[in-house]
Amino acid sequence: MNKMKCVVKSEPKEGAILTTREIPQIGPNEILVKVLATSICGTDYHIYSWDAWSQKRIKPPLIMGHEFAGEVIKVGEKVSKVKIGDIVSAETHIVCGKCELCATGKAHICKDTLILGVDTQGTFAEYVAIPEDNAWANDPSIPPEYLCIQEPLGNAVHTVLSGDIIGKTIAVVGCGPIGIMAVAVAKAVGAAKVIAIEVNEYRINLAKEVGADVVINPIKEDVIRRVLDETDGMGVDVVAEMSGNSTAIQQALKYIKLGGRMAMLGIPTEDVKLDVANGIVFKGIQIHGIVGRRMYETWHQVKGLLASGNLKLDKIVTHKLPLEDFEKGMELMKTGNCGKVVLFPNMK
Amino acid sequence: MNKMKCVVKSEPKEGAILTTREIPQIGPNEILVKVLATSICGTDYHIYSWDAWSQKRIKPPLIMGHEFAGEVIKVGEKVSKVKIGDIVSAETHIVCGKCELCATGKAHICKDTLILGVDTQGTFAEYVAIPEDNAWANDPSIPPEYLCIQEPLGNAVHTVLSGDIIGKTIAVVGCGPIGIMAVAVAKAVGAAKVIAIEVNEYRINLAKEVGADVVINPIKEDVIRRVLDETDGMGVDVVAEMSGNSTAIQQALKYIKLGGRMAMLGIPTEDVKLDVANGIVFKGIQIHGIVGRRMYETWHQVKGLLASGNLKLDKIVTHKLPLEDFEKGMELMKTGNCGKVVLFPNMK
Amino acid sequence: MNKMKCVVKSEPKEGAILTTREIPQIGPNEILVKVLATSICGTDYHIYSWDAWSQKRIKPPLIMGHEFAGEVIKVGEKVSKVKIGDIVSAETHIVCGKCELCATGKAHICKDTLILGVDTQGTFAEYVAIPEDNAWANDPSIPPEYLCIQEPLGNAVHTVLSGDIIGKTIAVVGCGPIGIMAVAVAKAVGAAKVIAIEVNEYRINLAKEVGADVVINPIKEDVIRRVLDETDGMGVDVVAEMSGNSTAIQQALKYIKLGGRMAMLGIPTEDVKLDVANGIVFKGIQIHGIVGRRMYETWHQVKGLLASGNLKLDKIVTHKLPLEDFEKGMELMKTGNCGKVVLFPNMK
Amino acid sequence: MNKMKCVVKSEPKEGAILTTREIPQIGPNEILVKVLATSICGTDYHIYSWDAWSQKRIKPPLIMGHEFAGEVIKVGEKVSKVKIGDIVSAETHIVCGKCELCATGKAHICKDTLILGVDTQGTFAEYVAIPEDNAWANDPSIPPEYLCIQEPLGNAVHTVLSGDIIGKTIAVVGCGPIGIMAVAVAKAVGAAKVIAIEVNEYRINLAKEVGADVVINPIKEDVIRRVLDETDGMGVDVVAEMSGNSTAIQQALKYIKLGGRMAMLGIPTEDVKLDVANGIVFKGIQIHGIVGRRMYETWHQVKGLLASGNLKLDKIVTHKLPLEDFEKGMELMKTGNCGKVVLFPNMK
Repeated sequence: MNKMKCVVKSEPKEGAILTTREIPQIGPNEILVKVLATSICGTDYHIYSWDAWSQKRIKPPLIMGHEFAGEVIKVGEKVSKVKIGDIVSAETHIVCGKCELCATGKAHICKDTLILGVDTQGTFAEYVAIPEDNAWANDPSIPPEYLCIQEPLGNAVHTVLSGDIIGKTIAVVGCGPIGIMAVAVAKAVGAAKVIAIEVNEYRINLAKEVGADVVINPIKEDVIRRVLDETDGMGVDVVAEMSGNSTAIQQALKYIKLGGRMAMLGIPTEDVKLDVANGIVFKGIQIHGIVGRRMYETWHQVKGLLASGNLKLDKIVTHKLPLEDFEKGMELMKTGNCGKVVLFPNMK
Repeated sequence: MNKMKCVVKSEPKEGAILTTREIPQIGPNEILVKVLATSICGTDYHIYSWDAWSQKRIKPPLIMGHEFAGEVIKVGEKVSKVKIGDIVSAETHIVCGKCELCATGKAHICKDTLILGVDTQGTFAEYVAIPEDNAWANDPSIPPEYLCIQEPLGNAVHTVLSGDIIGKTIAVVGCGPIGIMAVAVAKAVGAAKVIAIEVNEYRINLAKEVGADVVINPIKEDVIRRVLDETDGMGVDVVAEMSGNSTAIQQALKYIKLGGRMAMLGIPTEDVKLDVANGIVFKGIQIHGIVGRRMYETWHQVKGLLASGNLKLDKIVTHKLPLEDFEKGMELMKTGNCGKVVLFPNMK
Repeated sequence: MNKMKCVVKSEPKEGAILTTREIPQIGPNEILVKVLATSICGTDYHIYSWDAWSQKRIKPPLIMGHEFAGEVIKVGEKVSKVKIGDIVSAETHIVCGKCELCATGKAHICKDTLILGVDTQGTFAEYVAIPEDNAWANDPSIPPEYLCIQEPLGNAVHTVLSGDIIGKTIAVVGCGPIGIMAVAVAKAVGAAKVIAIEVNEYRINLAKEVGADVVINPIKEDVIRRVLDETDGMGVDVVAEMSGNSTAIQQALKYIKLGGRMAMLGIPTEDVKLDVANGIVFKGIQIHGIVGRRMYETWHQVKGLLASGNLKLDKIVTHKLPLEDFEKGMELMKTGNCGKVVLFPNMK
Repeated sequence: MNKMKCVVKSEPKEGAILTTREIPQIGPNEILVKVLATSICGTDYHIYSWDAWSQKRIKPPLIMGHEFAGEVIKVGEKVSKVKIGDIVSAETHIVCGKCELCATGKAHICKDTLILGVDTQGTFAEYVAIPEDNAWANDPSIPPEYLCIQEPLGNAVHTVLSGDIIGKTIAVVGCGPIGIMAVAVAKAVGAAKVIAIEVNEYRINLAKEVGADVVINPIKEDVIRRVLDETDGMGVDVVAEMSGNSTAIQQALKYIKLGGRMAMLGIPTEDVKLDVANGIVFKGIQIHGIVGRRMYETWHQVKGLLASGNLKLDKIVTHKLPLEDFEKGMELMKTGNCGKVVLFPNMK
């Protein structure tokens, strides 16, 4: 029994296969984890569909996946904190730990970052090996399908909490899974009004279910006018930009309040023309580029929010599938008719 | 009809009387407000009971009271923002508006502050005159009994939000009305765990009702041990010190986490012996002295939290009485068997 | 003697004239100031040269100018803080004082701002009337030619100090008068290395004189490569963008450090194409739009820096002229061969 | 030649001896450093004089000392960043690197901290072994006598920069070596006015030499009155409390400005009675407990300040002695008639 099933990007083209591989060996600072649940990230779908970014970055063959929760079944000889039996998730940025950025609380933007399931073998598998330093010890009483989504939830928390949010108005632009989580996070921490902007009707409804006070479909409505109407003509205090869409970003600069904050997690695929004078300088706003999760402040915030009970996770996980049905999961990601899709290597 | 009923501290001794006075005249920058609801503050009880502080500060005769909501019925000739018919509350610190502190966002600690109902005629009355600059325009759809408690709610918000709180553990030390509101605020913004510390059983129960995860009666339990037990031995991230009790403050320095924050609103009546070396320096904590409400950031936070719907106010207002029953309200304050007590000059 | 000399934009075309006008009347909340020194801002030159912005904004006839220092010779009946004989300068943003932004420390971006010398009669005159609220009381021992440049110095301080700067590397992009002051401010507060980027040789030399550690002329050198070379390949911690030049902004996103801060005061005249993905999001940087001066935190910082003695102002004021020679001053602004040009209504 | 000379606390009583020991062996993650310069800390003097704290904490025999600069002559097999030939100093807090505090930017208050030269063999020696993680790579062009004082300079930087300081007034209470450095740091970053408070005349003069604008000897003057006089009656914005003296702390609460910041590095030996109501709560001040140096933000700030050229170190190092003369150095520390005393194991 030294083989395991896993989903592998085997060739430089669209798709992936379910196959078997050797159970990974671990180094002295690594741990071996039995995967209990692993969820599909937009990045996984990009790799699956073999988009332009994937073609440049990914070197097949690669076991896909990076969001997960699992049980530690083996630890390397130098491992000092993690113990066998621990239920862990992982920070997926594997960083150098020694550069100026790592040494000053900015490890999430370390230049020498490797990403689990992108640059190293991933978690769409029965087992995965990860560095001890990346393991996050979980409260084992929380179900694995919630534990595995902490990594993208951390993206949402990092974005929404990059500045003041309590009692503020916020527009979440783009309600893919991380956008949906951003809506839930904003509600959980007492935002005054949460406006979700999204074109997909499934996700519009999901945004409402996790607590959006207002939903706007920019195909059907004048977004700028509507946001201003909903905010006494002042605009929103905060924009959580999750779409990467040029037009959406340009619009956001029109409806953000003077002195507001725009936290940008979405990744445009090309340059964006911005009205720097009227949208940024004269408005006196702040723009925050958001990458990953602060290591490990964001993880502690996620842990605290889970403990608070304010964050309703049950609505966010919309689909649970056996690992074998990963293609069905990818199809859901393609249509957008889902929140988080969680895969189980050994579904009961 | 130029007389109004009101509660007056008429003489320098315990008690107060219900009587009538002329309806106030207003200056060019003032507004006249018909009081719809006015709540009893601990300060009002101090004045009523004529404690040491009151004997030094208060000059009878004085119409008591400062927490209120009412309808604007007249505006001075220079008033430009407030309109007749507006439903307003008031910031009770009347400040100079010109000193360095006022000019740099610290008006709440202006040296030349006058306090409504302490240094000027107050709100336990059918009508009150206040400077336009102190008026806070309310959402008229919110009931007056909630609008009138925004001022002390602002104290709670100022205390709890003087630093990071989202996803953090917090101990609220002393659950008088403002402490109770601090518990509710901490829950509303996603604190990980809220520990309420209080000796009065009525208020212990009230703390539970507004969301405390843990309640500790220091008469019955070893507070330090219990807080450490509830926080994996690490202590709490935040202490909201609302008691002014020396022993409670000394204990807090024992159970606050390394690097934690202690926000102090409670006012000790004498010097407190503190273990500065072990409790402050070596622990690397921050202590924040809290006065009033930031003018007007705190009011906007309060407004946003009311809008969020996360803050359950119905449990906080425990008693509603006609103004005529103010002595019953004072008796409740004396026993501690109440949350906020609200008086209505014209109760239906 | 109720006439005064002044410089007036009399017609909607290039130029301005020296003429006489009535000495201004003051309202109850205003003060009348005898102008001792008044300096030329880039905005004044825009109005003089009648550029596209001026044609839309300015309504001739208008007494030009807004940077000044002078002696108070008359005060309105409601004035309570300023006294006759005070030496004052002025915050040039005349704001509403009542909106949410004014009430939360963001008066510098009040929607209802009027600007002295742009929307109201200005300071290129023997006398000017200003609201008391805008007066800034000076230390009278400092010469008027330094006092009058506090307003643009405040722009530089606001820009450089919008985030961490002590011990950091900074690139100042564009060394017009405010850029030159930004270099001086950065040096005064202990920046590790100050890199000045400018095309005009006069201003390159001036940047060196006020303390730039490195100067780069982007016409002659590869700016990106040079900045990276000067910062161990890491890029600068801070960019102070004073140029409004599209190419310069695009370059700055290439040489700013991961996690860095770009404070933007310069005003592009058209939309700017930005590499949002690689320049903002993946780098995890912050962009801060900067307008005016924080009212009045920035003025207090300016006052404190003047008191520190770290800020060498003598190099920054390069030309002193009688008011009558304002055209010579405008010519200097056109060529760029100047730092601050100060005009004296009554030069000795 | 596997012996080295060193200063050893050999017995649990006053004093220390110059003797020889084996050159240390290094582990896989350690480096061996040839000490070029090592300075005397107040802690070293406490150990030497065998005070109450030392008697509890120190286990002789112990090579003393922890402030140093030296050349790396050997690296362990797992060392990846430091190279032979590097000139290094060291962060002296050896921390766990895995706890919540270490993982959230608060490693300086890690519960499992060991201190170099206190809990491990120190630097008053020709060679010292330290963990690679604690090594700080220096600019080799800076003389060793300045590099070795970066550790205590980091204490001063941590204290002075724990909040706003640019353009602010500051009182440095206690001008031992770290207090003297705090004065120099405050001047280097543009404090408006630096007030040094000290009883020793040698150190009063030294404070003046490194830039104090005002010096006050509390034995000869009414400190509270004088500080208020020097600050227009407002008090100082910042107190850097370096004395640990109860009376000095009580006085500081009288002359700190409303809304001010008191950063406390000094360590009282007993409880301090504080007027919490009037000194902390009503004044709305912040108190910051300061321990060690932020790892490694403070070190980067120190590096940046050294690079700025604003920090005059030549006045701070007042005595240079061969290691053999350590007793003379200890005598200087006892009298207080010194700034930093630097020892050289191989003085030329």
